[in-house]
Amino acid sequence: MMEAGVVRVSSNEIGAQMGLTASQIRQDFNCFGGFGQQGYGYNVPKLRDQLAEILGMHQTNTAVIVGAGHFAHALLHNFKFGNCGVQLLAAFDILPTVVGTSIAGVPIRHIDTLEDYIQKHEVDIVILTLPSNKAEEMAKRAANAGVRGIWNLTNEALPPMPNGVLTESMHLSDSLLTLNYYLSDASESENTEEN
Amino acid sequence: MMEAGVVRVSSNEIGAQMGLTASQIRQDFNCFGGFGQQGYGYNVPKLRDQLAEILGMHQTNTAVIVGAGHFAHALLHNFKFGNCGVQLLAAFDILPTVVGTSIAGVPIRHIDTLEDYIQKHEVDIVILTLPSNKAEEMAKRAANAGVRGIWNLTNEALPPMPNGVLTESMHLSDSLLTLNYYLSDASESENTEEN
Repeated sequence: MMEAGVVRVSSNEIGAQMGLTASQIRQDFNCFGGFGQQGYGYNVPKLRDQLAEILGMHQTNTAVIVGAGHFAHALLHNFKFGNCGVQLLAAFDILPTVVGTSIAGVPIRHIDTLEDYIQKHEVDIVILTLPSNKAEEMAKRAANAGVRGIWNLTNEALPPMPNGVLTESMHLSDSLLTLNYYLSDASESENTEEN
Repeated sequence: MMEAGVVRVSSNEIGAQMGLTASQIRQDFNCFGGFGQQGYGYNVPKLRDQLAEILGMHQTNTAVIVGAGHFAHALLHNFKFGNCGVQLLAAFDILPTVVGTSIAGVPIRHIDTLEDYIQKHEVDIVILTLPSNKAEEMAKRAANAGVRGIWNLTNEALPPMPNGVLTESMHLSDSLLTLNYYLSDASESENTEEN
């Protein structure tokens, strides 16, 4: 909305765009203290600023990718890390054919240098885009080397990490199973029961 | 657990593995009628079967990918569509260098043939892994051609689709922002207030 020059927006309008009710929008915002004014709605630049503050987007966390395969390529070419408050410093892999090259300007380094790099550059986040069977081992190596957070893009569930390191996992299969559920007979028969 | 030969499990054990309380596990299962037996716990093969039934995994939906770039490569090489009850038939792209080839055994066809293919093969799901600025256009084309669901892996939000076609979007940025939030001062100061 800011890019479109919108200055003022109501909870009705936000709700319509997000497929939620105005009441849900107001309730959610109220969890953080509420930003609107009765009868006026929300000032768009101010709202954006407050949401960015809540989401920690004003601070920049540094990150490295582990596993420079196809998924990493997709991220490096298309994903706007800066918009999420993240600065991507490097990627790591084991393949001699990719180590020493760079993808979209990001250097690919050998996995053996991961711990040294994390310590030297005080890396905040490690992003896992490697084969699932290596996910836990690499997550632990990164956690022990000093990262504060792990963004797990493999389909492997991770156990609790040492040093209180946080894990955020994004499982593609959860998302596809959700769609499958809504397309299934099970969902249909449940809807029928409800109606 | 089935692969490990576990036959019987308690809500305590499931909760511990998922970072939830036993009570949450029981409450969630109760939403679907409850599968356990007081004092015994859950029979693992039976529980798995019931969950699969709820998730619609026993039915197979056919799917095609639109956009055969890096993300599609990653999916085609590593993602187990079959485990999600999905059979992947083909991928579509516009680049002459990829059209006519195949990736991990899946043929890449020209995007101009998308509608014909969807109709002829009664494709259930279209998977969007193309640049964000083309997402809405291609989603509508697929919806009008007869798919029942759209799995949106671009970072573009989609408007409601024609013909009641369902959309499930997976936004990588939501997941990374969540991690950023928990790593941020905002999260820390909130925790401090609560304690």
